[in-house]
Amino acid sequence: MTKTLKGIAASDGIAIAPAYLLVEPDLSFSKTTISDIDSEVSRYKKAVADSTTEVENIRDIAKKSLGEEESQVFEAHLMILNDPEFTGAIETEIKDQKVNAEAALDETAQKFIAIFEGMTDNPYMQERAADVRDVSKRIMAHLLGKKLPNPASIDHEVIVVAHDLTPSDTAQLNKKYVKGFITDIGGRTAHSAIMARSLELPAVVGSDSITKDVKDGQMLIADGLDGDAIVEPSDDQVAEYKQKSEAFLKQKAEWAKLKNEPSVTADGKKFVIAANIGTPNDMPGVHDNGAEAIGLYRTEFLYMNSSDFPTEDDQFEAYKSVIEGMNGKQTVIRTMDIGGDKHLDYWDLPDEMNPFLGVRAIRLSLKNEEIFRTQLRALLRASAYGPLGIMFPMIGTLAELRKAKSILNDEKDKLVKKGVKVGDDLQVGMMIEVPAAAVLADQFAKEVDFFSIGTNDLIQYTMAADRGNDEVSYLYQPYNPSVLRLIKHTIDGAHENGIWVGMCGEAAGDNTMFPILLSMGLDEYSMSATSILRIRSLMKKLNTEDLKELANEACYVSETAEDNEKLVNDLMAKLNK
Amino acid sequence: MTKTLKGIAASDGIAIAPAYLLVEPDLSFSKTTISDIDSEVSRYKKAVADSTTEVENIRDIAKKSLGEEESQVFEAHLMILNDPEFTGAIETEIKDQKVNAEAALDETAQKFIAIFEGMTDNPYMQERAADVRDVSKRIMAHLLGKKLPNPASIDHEVIVVAHDLTPSDTAQLNKKYVKGFITDIGGRTAHSAIMARSLELPAVVGSDSITKDVKDGQMLIADGLDGDAIVEPSDDQVAEYKQKSEAFLKQKAEWAKLKNEPSVTADGKKFVIAANIGTPNDMPGVHDNGAEAIGLYRTEFLYMNSSDFPTEDDQFEAYKSVIEGMNGKQTVIRTMDIGGDKHLDYWDLPDEMNPFLGVRAIRLSLKNEEIFRTQLRALLRASAYGPLGIMFPMIGTLAELRKAKSILNDEKDKLVKKGVKVGDDLQVGMMIEVPAAAVLADQFAKEVDFFSIGTNDLIQYTMAADRGNDEVSYLYQPYNPSVLRLIKHTIDGAHENGIWVGMCGEAAGDNTMFPILLSMGLDEYSMSATSILRIRSLMKKLNTEDLKELANEACYVSETAEDNEKLVNDLMAKLNK
Repeated sequence: MTKTLKGIAASDGIAIAPAYLLVEPDLSFSKTTISDIDSEVSRYKKAVADSTTEVENIRDIAKKSLGEEESQVFEAHLMILNDPEFTGAIETEIKDQKVNAEAALDETAQKFIAIFEGMTDNPYMQERAADVRDVSKRIMAHLLGKKLPNPASIDHEVIVVAHDLTPSDTAQLNKKYVKGFITDIGGRTAHSAIMARSLELPAVVGSDSITKDVKDGQMLIADGLDGDAIVEPSDDQVAEYKQKSEAFLKQKAEWAKLKNEPSVTADGKKFVIAANIGTPNDMPGVHDNGAEAIGLYRTEFLYMNSSDFPTEDDQFEAYKSVIEGMNGKQTVIRTMDIGGDKHLDYWDLPDEMNPFLGVRAIRLSLKNEEIFRTQLRALLRASAYGPLGIMFPMIGTLAELRKAKSILNDEKDKLVKKGVKVGDDLQVGMMIEVPAAAVLADQFAKEVDFFSIGTNDLIQYTMAADRGNDEVSYLYQPYNPSVLRLIKHTIDGAHENGIWVGMCGEAAGDNTMFPILLSMGLDEYSMSATSILRIRSLMKKLNTEDLKELANEACYVSETAEDNEKLVNDLMAKLNK
Repeated sequence: MTKTLKGIAASDGIAIAPAYLLVEPDLSFSKTTISDIDSEVSRYKKAVADSTTEVENIRDIAKKSLGEEESQVFEAHLMILNDPEFTGAIETEIKDQKVNAEAALDETAQKFIAIFEGMTDNPYMQERAADVRDVSKRIMAHLLGKKLPNPASIDHEVIVVAHDLTPSDTAQLNKKYVKGFITDIGGRTAHSAIMARSLELPAVVGSDSITKDVKDGQMLIADGLDGDAIVEPSDDQVAEYKQKSEAFLKQKAEWAKLKNEPSVTADGKKFVIAANIGTPNDMPGVHDNGAEAIGLYRTEFLYMNSSDFPTEDDQFEAYKSVIEGMNGKQTVIRTMDIGGDKHLDYWDLPDEMNPFLGVRAIRLSLKNEEIFRTQLRALLRASAYGPLGIMFPMIGTLAELRKAKSILNDEKDKLVKKGVKVGDDLQVGMMIEVPAAAVLADQFAKEVDFFSIGTNDLIQYTMAADRGNDEVSYLYQPYNPSVLRLIKHTIDGAHENGIWVGMCGEAAGDNTMFPILLSMGLDEYSMSATSILRIRSLMKKLNTEDLKELANEACYVSETAEDNEKLVNDLMAKLNK
């Protein structure tokens, strides 16, 4: 039965492939007393044998498709499956306690996990706890006749279906076979959506119920252009979407011609279109899409993809490789934005009732000065290799900005005294994402070289609506006149004080937002690399004279976000006539 | 050893009394195997007997000091202590399993609690789960030789010391003996602080470590004027603080003379000073302190102090009694602000990652229209008994305001059609606490009769700093120029559109904030009743001519919260010369 789900278009493009459900099955069980011990033991042994065969298979596929390193974890799993101390203990438990294999497995695994986790002075053994957990889950699934998803074992084209995708899920996906994905929850700024754009995979997020509405292997269409997910499409629909996909690819090919063109309006005004990146691995996309700068390098991934704090040298190498890779174009690197929804396994931060209103980003850096200074030294050293902008996230008060700048200057002085080369054209900037900073932009502008407006957080705080909470997503309104007034006030404050201002939130690459921002005179537009050519093409069609009144109307005449969508749509229709 | 802790002055006045620690002892234990079963059983029986004696004592004291109703819960506890089904089961467990009494008690109690909680169709039996939990805790304390705090048994003057005080803790305090309190955590806007002011008890919150630094019965001074907590004060200090207390009481007596005076500045400008209340029980304080209106009646306590949703009639009676009690002066009643940090036992709302950025207040009301309509009908019916303002909390968009107003009008039409009397002078207003609403105040002002600025939340969202999170309390800055600009913009937007604007956040009663607000022309100042006379006295001394430049300087010249504190202090020093 064909069924269409309406979700959020999270990453451009169309995928047509069978569903691969990345969904954990229910592994709950009841503890029972067993009379026929022998048959229970052999049922248990079969589950272990089946698990072993399965893991060997996954390891082989992972080795081929993801590489030697990614497949190591499965070797560790096999070691546990072959370890008589573990498997034997479960067998003994079945025999001694006369309980079913599920209960024996669960109790034994809990014991082993507790022992490993207790070895706080041995991180290697602590990590084994996760392996025991994974292996036990697999044996349990075999005992219960359930199937565990194995993303690493995917060996044919699929659309991945999940409730949500975590960073570690996405790391395990093989881009060769994964053609797109569809999730139950999330919005355009969710991690899964950002990853999809960075991987250039069509994606629909926030479909609400896709994990319930599709079965493994059923045919799926993911329309990342309009946000539709179609389960078991008809032949006509498949044909229609193939056509739509071709049209999109053709348009992309058109856009591709703009790769080496400057970013100019129809009346010849020049602006900068830049890319947001997460790691040096994103650099090919930056160049392929003709970015004129990097407007945001999110350094937190350096910390998140690591088992301990990255050293100064590790960071230096990463920053240097990106700066050098830009061949003289500017790179803006943001100091770590940890906290909020981003956690590190190796940094035990206190639980907070409202983490988005807690100790995150610059707040965490200023409370942990040595970690902050390490990052600043790495950045300062890297600044010798090309034009760099260092940017502080979540600045809310002038006191915070002054403190961060004084630590930066202190580290700079120390390096210079040691004879270490630091770039001459280093710029220091800040994110505008806390409403207080937007309101006082005219004052902040006197103390930095540039601003970058982080719309994702600015909208969340201005509207008091968690951007990850589906229940209040209707309040997450980029076009709300209040948000636009704060953006305009920020741009005006910057220009009155002679500094440039960019935007690195998702809104910069949004077709409706873009004409409004152009009308406000925003200098730099930083976005997912895959959005750059689309926006450059749009810019080419727009004449700033036609947009002269747009900003004021959007801020002061419009009353709602819907008013502004209509305002831009009407204007574009008029201009396209 | 004398020790002084610096906390936050949460409620005026000075208390000198021994400490009463309202701190849960550590009741963890190890499960052990017992060889001498008989002696273990008699150890257990002694703990039950001691618990029974203790509860009987508490019941007798509670009956005398708190009344028959409050002491009922202890009768329920005695029934469980005397119930052989419960106590016998524990004894059997000790004998059969050969385990220590602690383990037997814990396992048996868990079983009983699970059974009671499982009776979802019998609320009476479900509530017994809490009783079993309380009784088991008491027996466990006796087994472990620990002492449980019993606030209901306090029979001499004390200062209560706690990590934090919950609403149910405060409900059990006997005002006759509790002279003040000191907590580890919390700020001026914490529940505990608000309660202290409503009870007129001196309080110091956020002392960080008072529960560690004082022992039960040690002498304490709680200086709620300057936020100091002194453990084991010297005789000189006791004398000094007695003097300070007398001076404060003398000043209070001076202020008391202003009870029936109007609120006017030195140059004869009239404003309104109003009271914030939580329940009709707060009315005596409203009158004793000469409030000219009620600027905020927080209706959520009606829901929180109830075991199910209050009926329309229950609500009507509460609203009517307050409106009638005001004898023709206006009462502003806010529709329920549930969600965020306020939960109801009987309303199972989804867990949220950031509840302050989630479904709370008007958002929850609009998603649960029947509950909202019940409250609106009660309010509309009550409006026949005096001048009422109905106020919607957490409005962020015009769409929300329009929706809330249309539901209100719909209910009004239905009542009028039925011939039910509704007040002629009913006003409809909204809180300004979401930054988006402050930024668009000029637009919102066209669609309501009044604003009330909720500084507690407005500051929290503008600074992106959870007001309950100690780690970011340095960012919770009422005097930050960004906050002041939003307040000024709100007041200007209101006045340009001919509506009045009040403030019902804590800032309205703050000595430093007050001159700035007066300079901005705020019309109504609503605060804890106990702050009214202090502010009226301050108003009498201020000449609006002297304050003419203050608002603009505070918003546009000052750069930090500290700048503004200095600005006001300098100005006041100059004026007092």
